[in-house]
Parts: sequence; C-alpha cells; structure tokens
Amino acid sequence: MALPLPASTRCLLPLSLGLFQAALLLFFALFITYDEHSAAPTNSEDVEHAAKQLHSTFPFFQDIQVMLVVGLGLLLAFLPRYGLSALTHNFLLLNVSAQWALMLQGLLHHLQHGKAVLGLHSMLSAEFAAVTVLISAGAVLGRTSPSQLLAMALCEVPIYLASEWLIITRLGVLDVGGTITIHVFACYFGLGVSKTLFGNAKPTVHPKETPTPRSDLLALLGALILWVFWPSFVAVLCQPGDAQHRAILHTLLALSASTITTVLISILLESDGKLSAGHLQNGSLAGGVAIGAVADMHITPAAALALGSLSSLLCILGFQFLTPLLAKKLALQDRCGIHNLHGLPGILGAVASVVAALLAPGDGSEAARHKQAQWQAAGLVVALGGSLFAGMLVGAALRLPCLAPPPEPLCFEDALYFKLQERAEGPPALGGSTEGVPLATKECE
Amino acid sequence: MALPLPASTRCLLPLSLGLFQAALLLFFALFITYDEHSAAPTNSEDVEHAAKQLHSTFPFFQDIQVMLVVGLGLLLAFLPRYGLSALTHNFLLLNVSAQWALMLQGLLHHLQHGKAVLGLHSMLSAEFAAVTVLISAGAVLGRTSPSQLLAMALCEVPIYLASEWLIITRLGVLDVGGTITIHVFACYFGLGVSKTLFGNAKPTVHPKETPTPRSDLLALLGALILWVFWPSFVAVLCQPGDAQHRAILHTLLALSASTITTVLISILLESDGKLSAGHLQNGSLAGGVAIGAVADMHITPAAALALGSLSSLLCILGFQFLTPLLAKKLALQDRCGIHNLHGLPGILGAVASVVAALLAPGDGSEAARHKQAQWQAAGLVVALGGSLFAGMLVGAALRLPCLAPPPEPLCFEDALYFKLQERAEGPPALGGSTEGVPLATKECE
Amino acid sequence: MALPLPASTRCLLPLSLGLFQAALLLFFALFITYDEHSAAPTNSEDVEHAAKQLHSTFPFFQDIQVMLVVGLGLLLAFLPRYGLSALTHNFLLLNVSAQWALMLQGLLHHLQHGKAVLGLHSMLSAEFAAVTVLISAGAVLGRTSPSQLLAMALCEVPIYLASEWLIITRLGVLDVGGTITIHVFACYFGLGVSKTLFGNAKPTVHPKETPTPRSDLLALLGALILWVFWPSFVAVLCQPGDAQHRAILHTLLALSASTITTVLISILLESDGKLSAGHLQNGSLAGGVAIGAVADMHITPAAALALGSLSSLLCILGFQFLTPLLAKKLALQDRCGIHNLHGLPGILGAVASVVAALLAPGDGSEAARHKQAQWQAAGLVVALGGSLFAGMLVGAALRLPCLAPPPEPLCFEDALYFKLQERAEGPPALGGSTEGVPLATKECE
Repeated sequence: MALPLPASTRCLLPLSLGLFQAALLLFFALFITYDEHSAAPTNSEDVEHAAKQLHSTFPFFQDIQVMLVVGLGLLLAFLPRYGLSALTHNFLLLNVSAQWALMLQGLLHHLQHGKAVLGLHSMLSAEFAAVTVLISAGAVLGRTSPSQLLAMALCEVPIYLASEWLIITRLGVLDVGGTITIHVFACYFGLGVSKTLFGNAKPTVHPKETPTPRSDLLALLGALILWVFWPSFVAVLCQPGDAQHRAILHTLLALSASTITTVLISILLESDGKLSAGHLQNGSLAGGVAIGAVADMHITPAAALALGSLSSLLCILGFQFLTPLLAKKLALQDRCGIHNLHGLPGILGAVASVVAALLAPGDGSEAARHKQAQWQAAGLVVALGGSLFAGMLVGAALRLPCLAPPPEPLCFEDALYFKLQERAEGPPALGGSTEGVPLATKECE
Repeated sequence: MALPLPASTRCLLPLSLGLFQAALLLFFALFITYDEHSAAPTNSEDVEHAAKQLHSTFPFFQDIQVMLVVGLGLLLAFLPRYGLSALTHNFLLLNVSAQWALMLQGLLHHLQHGKAVLGLHSMLSAEFAAVTVLISAGAVLGRTSPSQLLAMALCEVPIYLASEWLIITRLGVLDVGGTITIHVFACYFGLGVSKTLFGNAKPTVHPKETPTPRSDLLALLGALILWVFWPSFVAVLCQPGDAQHRAILHTLLALSASTITTVLISILLESDGKLSAGHLQNGSLAGGVAIGAVADMHITPAAALALGSLSSLLCILGFQFLTPLLAKKLALQDRCGIHNLHGLPGILGAVASVVAALLAPGDGSEAARHKQAQWQAAGLVVALGGSLFAGMLVGAALRLPCLAPPPEPLCFEDALYFKLQERAEGPPALGGSTEGVPLATKECE
Repeated sequence: MALPLPASTRCLLPLSLGLFQAALLLFFALFITYDEHSAAPTNSEDVEHAAKQLHSTFPFFQDIQVMLVVGLGLLLAFLPRYGLSALTHNFLLLNVSAQWALMLQGLLHHLQHGKAVLGLHSMLSAEFAAVTVLISAGAVLGRTSPSQLLAMALCEVPIYLASEWLIITRLGVLDVGGTITIHVFACYFGLGVSKTLFGNAKPTVHPKETPTPRSDLLALLGALILWVFWPSFVAVLCQPGDAQHRAILHTLLALSASTITTVLISILLESDGKLSAGHLQNGSLAGGVAIGAVADMHITPAAALALGSLSSLLCILGFQFLTPLLAKKLALQDRCGIHNLHGLPGILGAVASVVAALLAPGDGSEAARHKQAQWQAAGLVVALGGSLFAGMLVGAALRLPCLAPPPEPLCFEDALYFKLQERAEGPPALGGSTEGVPLATKECE
C-alpha cells in the first residue's frame, strides 16, 4: 500500500514551508505593529471607536472564513476518493496565501509609509488575495501536488496585489465584490496555469473523477454554505449604511434568481429531464460572482434579478457546451469548471458595471460617466489579459520535476498524500462484520 | 438505468419556473423600489441609522439562512437514497416561496400605499412565509414530485399571508417566534395536503424509507445546526433591548430542557433502553417551536424550562403513539412527523400564550388581559382550522396527473430526479478496487 | 441484534436525568430572576444599553455554540462506528453541564448577593464550564457509558467553578481565553479520570477505533469549524475595543501558524512523507489553545505566530512520542489525545503568560510585574495539580458497576446506545440492490 514518493518531494515541501514560516516570523518581528484599533488607546473615544469597528466587521469576517474554509473545501470534495486532500489543500493554501499577502502588503506599506500595521482590515485584504489562489487551484485540482500548488500561490499573490492596485487604485474601477479583481483574475490565471502545465495532452476522464451521490451531497452542502454567506463576502468592504444595504439585497436577489434559473436550465438541457448535481453546485452561485462589480450601485432590484438569471444561464451553457469545446480545441483542462463559475459570470458582471456606470443616475456629468464606464472596461481587460499571461508563465514553471506532479494513475487519490491507516484485523464486530474487507473497498465508502 | 419521465413533467417544471421568474422580473421592474435604509440617503444621520439597522439585523438574518438552507436540508436528508433530492427540493422551494412572498407582499403594499419597497425586513418576512412551505413539505417528503411541491408553494404562500395578516394585524395576537402563525399553520396545512393527496390508501413502509446510521448522522447534524441557531429565528423580530434578551434566554432554556427530556423519554419508551435517532432529531427542537409565542414576555426562566420539557415530551409521545394511530385510523401520512415537531408543540405554545396573557404582570387591566388571552386562543383556532381546510383543498388539486407524482417503486429515490453519473470503467484503483461494482451498490453508500 | 442492557442502566440514566431536570426547574422557580439587560427596563436608556450589549455579545455566543455543538461533535466522530454516539453524548453533556453550572453559579450568587440573575453573560459562563467536561470526556471516549459521563459532569463542574474562582478571582491570573482555567484543567482532570477508571490494564487498539477516510473527513470538517470560530471563543470575554481586537488578531495568527507548522512537522515525522489526518485535526487547533492566556496582551503579532508554531510542534511530537510512552509506562489511555491538544499547548500558553507578564511594557513597576508572573505560574500549578488529583478521585468513583461501563467488545459501537432500525426486506431497488445485505454491513458504511 505504501506509495513511495520521490525524496525531493518529501524534503522540498517541509523545507519550503519551514523557510516560509521562518521568513514570515522574522518579517513580523522586524516590521509589523498594531493598527490604530488594536494598539493601546490614548482615550476612551478610541476604545469606543475600536469596539464599533470590530462589531461592524467581525461577523462579516467570520462568515467569509466559513465560506473559504468549510464551504469551498466541501465544494471541492466532489471527487469521491479525494475529499481529504481537497479540504486539506484548500486549507493549507488559504493559510499560506493569506500570510504571504500579509507580508507583501506589510512590505509595501512599510516602503510607502515607513511602517506596517496589522488589523482586521489588513487580515481581510489578505484573505481576499488568498481567495484568488483557491479559485485558480480549481482548474488543476487533483492533478497537482501540494508543492505545485504552493509554488503557484507564491507566484499568484504578488501578481494579484499588483493587478488589484492597478485596477482599483490607479484606474479607479468600482468593484466592491471583487467580480473583476478576484473572480475574473483568478479564473484566467488558473486557466493559464492549466494550459501550460498540462500542455497539449488531450484531457481524459480519469476513472476516479466521477462523483458518487455521497460526494455530490458533500459538494452540494459546500455550495449551500457558500450560497448562504455570499452576501457577507460582497458587502464586507462596502461603505456602511445604504450602500451596504443595497449590496446585501442585490446579492440575495441575484443568488435567488440564479438558483431558480439553474434548475430550469439544467432540466431543459439534460437529455432525460433530470437535474445535474454539478450544475446546481455551480449555477446557483453564479449570480454572486456577477453581482460583485455593481452590488452597491443604484441598479434597481430588477436588474439584480436579471443579472442573477443571466449569469447562471451562462454558467450552465458553459458547462454544457464551452468546456467540452475548449477541451477539444485547446486541450484545456478545467477540473472544477472555474471558467463557468468565475470566468463567464465575472465577465458578465464587468460588462454590467460598464452599463451601470453609463446609466448611473444623477451623480456626475455625462463625460464623467463615460469615463467611469471606460475604466470599468479597461479593468476587465487588464484583469483578464494580465492574469492569462501571468498564469501561462507560472504554469510553465510548475512543470519543474522537483515539484513532484502526481503520476497519472494516482491522481484524484487521497492515499497519495494521506497516511490512511489500514484497519487492524480484530475480532469480528457485532453480528457479522466488514473488518476483513480489503482496505481499498473501505476507502471508497 | 434511465428512468423515462413523462414529457409533461419534463416541460411543465422548466416552463412554470421560467414563467414564474419572468413574472417576478416584470413585477420588480415595474413596482419595486428600495426601502428607506437602502435608498440614497439625504443626510449623514440616515446613513448612520441604516448602518445601525443593518448591524443589528444582518447577523440574525444569516443565522436564519443557515437554518433553512443547511440545517433543515440536512434534517430532511435522513432518507438514505434521497439526500440530494431532499436538500435540493428544500433549497428550490425556499427560493421560489420567498420570491413569491416578496411579490405578493409588494403587491399588497403597492395597493395600500401606492408603492412597494424592498429591504432587509421585507426579505425576512418573505423567508418566514417560505418556512411554512418547507415545514408543510415534510409531511409528503419523498412521495411528491418537484412540480407538486412548487404548486403547493404557490398556493400556500398567499394563504399564509392572509392567515398571518388576520392573526397578527387584525386579531392582535402576540406571536413573536411564529409558533401559531408559522408552525401550527404549516403543520396542519401540510397534513391537510397529505390527507387529500394520498387519500385513504393505508401508509406502508417503503423499503427505502429506513434511515441508515450514515443518513441518521447527517440528519442529526442538521438538527444540531437548527438547534444552535434557533434563538436567532425566535428573536429576530423582537423589539431590540430587554425583549430580545428575554426571547433569546427563554429559547436557549427551552431548547436545553427539550434536549435532556428527549433523551430521558426516548430511553424510557424504547423497549430495550436505547435512544432513537429520530426522537433526538425532533424532540430536541420541540422547545424552540413551543416557546415562540411567549418568548419575549415576562414568563420567568422556570416557565421556559418547563415549556421546553413538556413540548419534547409531547413530541416523543406523538411519534410513539399518535402517529401510528393517525396512520391506522385516518390513513394519514406524515413522513417527517411534522405533527409531532410542529403541531403538538405549536398547540402547547399557543395554550401557554393564553395562560401567559391571563397572568401577565402589571400592564393593563384584568379585562384587557382576558381579551388578549381570548385573541391568543382565537389565533390558534384560525391558524389550525384555516390551514387544515385550505391544505385539504390544495392537496386535492395536487392529484392532477400533469404534476407527475413519482411512481411508488421510485419514491424516495434520488435517481428519479438526478442525473447520477455512472462510473466510467477504468484501470483498477490502487491495491484493489470497487470500480467494477454495479452502480446501484455505489448509490447506496 | 438486540444488545440487552442491564436493567440498572435502563433505569438509572432516565431516572437521574429526570431528577436533575426536576431539581433544576425547582431551583429556577425559586431563585432565578432576569439580569438587568433582560428585566423590564425603567427608561429608554436601559433599552438602548441592553440592545447594545446584545448586539456586541450574541454573534460571539452563537459562534461558540456552533463550535461546541457542531464542531466538537464532528471532531469526535472520527470513530467510524461511533459517530452518532459521539455527537449525541457531546450534545447531552453540554446541556447537562451548562444547566448544572447555571444552577451552581446561581446558588453561589444567591448566597453572596441574596439573588441569582440570568443573562447572556451567565449563559456564557455556564457554557465555558461545560467545555471542560466536553474536553475531559475526550480521554475516555468510546469506553464509557452515558451514565459514567454524566456522573463525571456532575463532579467536574463544581470542581471547575472552584478552580476558576481560585485562579481568576483569588490569584488574579490573567487568562482571557481559558488556556489555564479551561484547557489545562480539563485535560488533566480527564487524564486523572482515565487513569483510575481504567487502572493498569495496558491500552489495546480496539478494531473499531481505526478511522476510515470517511470518518476522518467528518472529523476534519469538525476541526475546520472549530478553527474558524476559535477567535470568538478567545475574544468573547475581552474588554471591548483594542483588547478584543488584539485577542482576535493574535488568535488568527496563532491558528494560521499552527496549520502550516502542523503540515510541515507531520510530513517530516511520518515515515513515507505523508500527512496524518489525526495530526491535522489536532495540530491546527493547538495555537488556539496556547494563545488564550496572552491573547489580549501587547505581545506583538510575531509572538502570536511563534506561539502558534511552537504549540503545534509540541502537539504533534506529543502524538508521535509522548502518547505511546505514557501508554506504555503508565498504561494511560487518552483516546482523543487531549494531552496533546489541550495539555501541552495549555502549559506552553501558561508559560508564555508568565514571560509576557514579566516583559509587560510600561504599565506597573517591576515588582508588580514579577508578582503577576508568579501568579500566572501559581495558576498553572493549581489548575494542573488540582485537576489531576480531583480527576483521579472521580475516575475511581466511575468504576461503580451501576454506571454500566460498556463491555469491551461493544466499545466504540453505536448499536449499544442507539436503536438502529433494521432495513425492512422489500422489493429490490432500482437496477440491483443492497437491501439484502446484512445489517452489520450497512452500519459500517
């Protein structure tokens, strides 16, 4: 049962994690201090203000943590023999990427302002950077080693920070829910990685890839958890008050419309009028991706509904027609269908933000509105083009043999990364037993 | 393996979902605007006020979403081959019912005030309307098609809104946690539907109905999630301040007493001193149902404990004695035992609210207290009688063949509604394999 | 299939639960009133204040409930045939212990101040008392009956309250996250119980003890839920404002460092470079245990990272070397490895608090800082020694035969406590069936 790993992996992964952790520690010891909410206060007003900031942010923060750690992890557990690995790699990537983002943000802040501060807000930005890595990893799930994923994370986070700075700070793009900066960016980065990493080999369906009803149930549970907490993700960085209200309402409406449209389209498309669990797991979230760029604007509730419906339509059409086409024409592998959940709805959301900027009621001259619309379009182009290009470079680097890609027969297999204990032979259990059944059968359960 | 569905279903369900979504979109485009918290503010005080309202409501709202989408969905997944369907039908019903309630509420508001506004509060009311549909569906779970469930939702929501208006607005009944308006109403509506839908055929135990330890574990997980967040459900609509405090404390105490009493009674009743997982999944929640009508009153903590204990006692006695009796005498099918979890504890809670109104300390004259007690009793009668009558009418309508009820051998079977992918035959997996095992075995896992 | 239980158990457990519930009810009826936040307010400022207190505490409270009921329950469900029992015993113990703590706290308060008040804060203290019981139970999981666990709870709660009073109120130890008062106390209490309860019999590996990939997945899910909400546990009792900010940030950093270090160390230690699911489930939480005693101090973010790394290192070394050693030399059974998750990181956290007290910047003279450091050390000694001694006494008492310990072949077996329904023989299911497979096979799934 023992699957010998090349010595390089067995050393490389712990070694690099150890170096990373030591470097982070050193950096934190030298440069990082508390932000104004967590430092010792100078008067009671400061304390009051810090408490208020905490109570208005922390519930959102916890919701997002549940999404990323539990919801997304379970969504990725649709591979029946790869659940432990999916949950664990997601969890590890989140931590490494967020710490790495904290360090890079701190460094930039230090260079600009002479100090680097830590607070709930910088934690949140770091989590957002990590989200891009988690999304991109979906394209190559199951066929990559932890070392490859970590190498990808180390490359992707600084590129994301640069892209986000360019899009938001320089271009002034409005994107409160990360439709362009997070979803579009992460999707095309991941597809770029997948393309150059796997080359032109035609994607084949691996026998362990097919979900079972049990693994589909876990993945659906993950999707439902994401669905429930998605409004917190979109609204956490909004201006408190009416803008945050609108962001939450629009996201709720978009997600609700997505769900109904998904069921409707999936039944129509499947040959025998049945629902596809994969469509449901992805399509019902598409509205949340698309709404991000316009969530806090005055787009009317009807527009939020329409956007939700349209995005899930695109998502399912993508699964049904575009993914097979890309696999056939471009030999593009996209294991979790991130192009359908993040790419297409993300582009739709970006286009919606162009339209919303053009039609924005009242505030600003027509020239200003045209300019904003152009920036929105420019942001989309930068996010899409830049990430695709960068992803392809990174994917080529991930082909390094020392990163120990899993051999094809052991892809999608927990036993490659986890010490799965063989069951001790013991006295038969109560009223008959399965103790004697060979391990491989137990693993499939 | 393909189960051909009649063409009517394959067209009816997508068609009606499509029409529904289009009608909603049109209605929203024509009539719905933002409420005062989400509209553009006129001054900074408005912003402050909107932010405060959001931070005091949104955490409760998210808790309730988790309950309905994840907790209730898992609780219904106790049928071992019907987990995907249970989660999905619950999720779809929630979305359709909530949107439908938003539309109807908006219409009423429009007729009364000339405009219809959308906000977190109207979302919450719509969710509450949807809860009744989710509860009622429990009576007929597994033996109904999605089309039947959707038809039921379309009928039940307006009847609920009328009933709720009559009970709360006209009669002035106090019922902050929805004991009477939600639980009693939904239970007897569901039982009415079940009665006329299934007629006088004696209920039989379907071989796929029996939970396995694995499906019982999922359902217990769902019950625990409901248990944890139940205080938010009861307290969300309370007056902020001491009333909301009391509602939370009373609910916590009632649920805690329910849990202990459930274990105690279940062990006493079962022949060999063991616990029934079904009793635990339902009995531990009974206190939350009963406490709703009196949660914010000054009933004393001891009364909350007593109510919790009593309601779980009723619930388990109902499972053990009343459900078999109703099945035998009235041929009444109640798949999830909603009469035991929502009906009996709901009636108990309503009676408790009569007593509490009579004994209310201080405020108001004796005549006023008597009057309030009478209104509470009247509310119970309206909720119970009206819903039973309406449910029976709706159940008769659901017998329409075009709604495609599932044939008996395919009840409680995910494969009827889900495209379950057959596992590709591939190279044997690591160290032996189950790849060759026929699909049906895999589905059972 | 029926496993006859001795009549004593079948009577003792319901009888004692019934007496307990009746006593609690009587006590509440006689002595308990509302606290100032839930009593009828005298003016509108009271209402405002009560609302504010609720909105700043309740989200934390709910997070902690999720941790204890769902997260911890799932974490204990790593035993493949004992998942229902693990979740249920955890749930029952939580309720009984919390009610018992409410009663004892109320009694003490009554004796001191002439009245006993109930509020969200006393609920929270009662939950914290219950946590110690849940942790201690981990040492003896699977080999103890519910009666034994309840007897342990009834003994442990008053001892905890005395220990906590001595450490916090008398010695003035700083321990906002319960590192010393909860984790160290509960760990050594549980180990003491285990030692005298099981005597000198060498621990053997029971054939039902070995996790399957499926049960490991559930336990990992539980660990992730605990990981996400741990900051709420540590920070809930902090002073609002900057102290609460720091507690949350430090806990986030410590947990994140723990996760990375756990993966790193586990891969290094395991012979073939694979990860152990058990290490991951425990090691990633170790930082949360250790940080508690210093979470709100000005320890710098770097120190939080270092503490997190170090504690998970200790935790995994404990699993790998200390647990086998203790089992061999002292015949000590520690089923869940609570010594590695709560004991070692707890001691580390206590030592860190001594150092932090010594190095505390600014506030107070050097003498005062030395004194505080001494108190911290004294607190550790009291918690460790007292709990070990008390636990050994309680463990001896749990050997009473009337508490019905499970016979060895039926340990780790749900069927001993749960009425697992045998599947009715019915018509074969769709396309082949597993209906005819004997029950024992189904139970293993």
